[in-house]
Amino acid sequence: MKYCQQCAADLHYRIPEGDDKPRYCCIECDLVFYQNPKNVVGTLPIFDGKVLLCKRAIQPRKGKWTLPAGFLENGESSLEGAIRETDEEAGASVKVSANSLYTLFNLPSINQMYLFFKVELENLDFEPGIESLEVQLFAEEEIPWKEIAFPVVKTTLESYFEDRKNNVFPVRMFDVHHSADKVISTTLISENKV
Amino acid sequence: MKYCQQCAADLHYRIPEGDDKPRYCCIECDLVFYQNPKNVVGTLPIFDGKVLLCKRAIQPRKGKWTLPAGFLENGESSLEGAIRETDEEAGASVKVSANSLYTLFNLPSINQMYLFFKVELENLDFEPGIESLEVQLFAEEEIPWKEIAFPVVKTTLESYFEDRKNNVFPVRMFDVHHSADKVISTTLISENKV
Repeated sequence: MKYCQQCAADLHYRIPEGDDKPRYCCIECDLVFYQNPKNVVGTLPIFDGKVLLCKRAIQPRKGKWTLPAGFLENGESSLEGAIRETDEEAGASVKVSANSLYTLFNLPSINQMYLFFKVELENLDFEPGIESLEVQLFAEEEIPWKEIAFPVVKTTLESYFEDRKNNVFPVRMFDVHHSADKVISTTLISENKV
Repeated sequence: MKYCQQCAADLHYRIPEGDDKPRYCCIECDLVFYQNPKNVVGTLPIFDGKVLLCKRAIQPRKGKWTLPAGFLENGESSLEGAIRETDEEAGASVKVSANSLYTLFNLPSINQMYLFFKVELENLDFEPGIESLEVQLFAEEEIPWKEIAFPVVKTTLESYFEDRKNNVFPVRMFDVHHSADKVISTTLISENKV
């Protein structure tokens, strides 16, 4: 980040007046450019006890299996974004229940937050979108655990298979910590067992 | 947004190749500038059944009462950000329980998501930070309902006083819709009654 988006003057990285953190600030018009975490939203789509996974057609983790998810866009709610991504990546329509919010992940090392919603597939009409090579339903014993693209996906799947033993699905929040691009720990932070 | 932050060339608002939404794109270096929703994180601080509120020293809603909350920063988890804001705005230290995540609000019209965590005050050592005029504990019957700064705060307080009747605190997600800067509806989207 070198130039002001409003006046094209140079940016300096300094603490603005009244702030306590350094930001990119324009030396001419004083505009401050804040940088904040982004949200990734997705679904855990269920049909007849099986889970829908997508084989990634793009990097990172091309060829690995994931849940449909992507960056939340301006103008949409987290659930709307999750449903959109499910349509884009898996061509799938979903039914949303009253307790759809399921897992949240803080990834402070990469400035992201993930939210997954537990939803039901409306039918078996699904097909790979442009970012997927394949889309497939997996029973628990069929899950390709060693080929799962991201720890947030693995933890969401593990939570689901554990929780469905009791048919109780608390909302769980985890912190995921990275070191040199590798996940070093996933810690349960909040779980509303009621 | 007029100029590229990397090379200072003009930006054009167009759909990048492989995308389906218009973005600000540099006409020289092709860099795409994505804009995504921001997260606001805060706490519902409880002490002896009373709730800590802050009277706002800044616009918007200067002089109105709010829960401590602010923009999530890069490099922190949502809970860390909420604890930091509680320290900054109310000078208060908090204890976090295993089911601290409490309310989430989607505000797609203003490209924000709010998260509130239910926490206990560690002690009565609190004082207004630079963005607060006063900080005060309120019993339910003392809450200044007509002087609450934001609907997300009012809904979080209402949820708390309702839920504590049963001492059950499900995580609830709401959509908040605006028209001409006024909130027109707050809809419950997800509630994990288990």
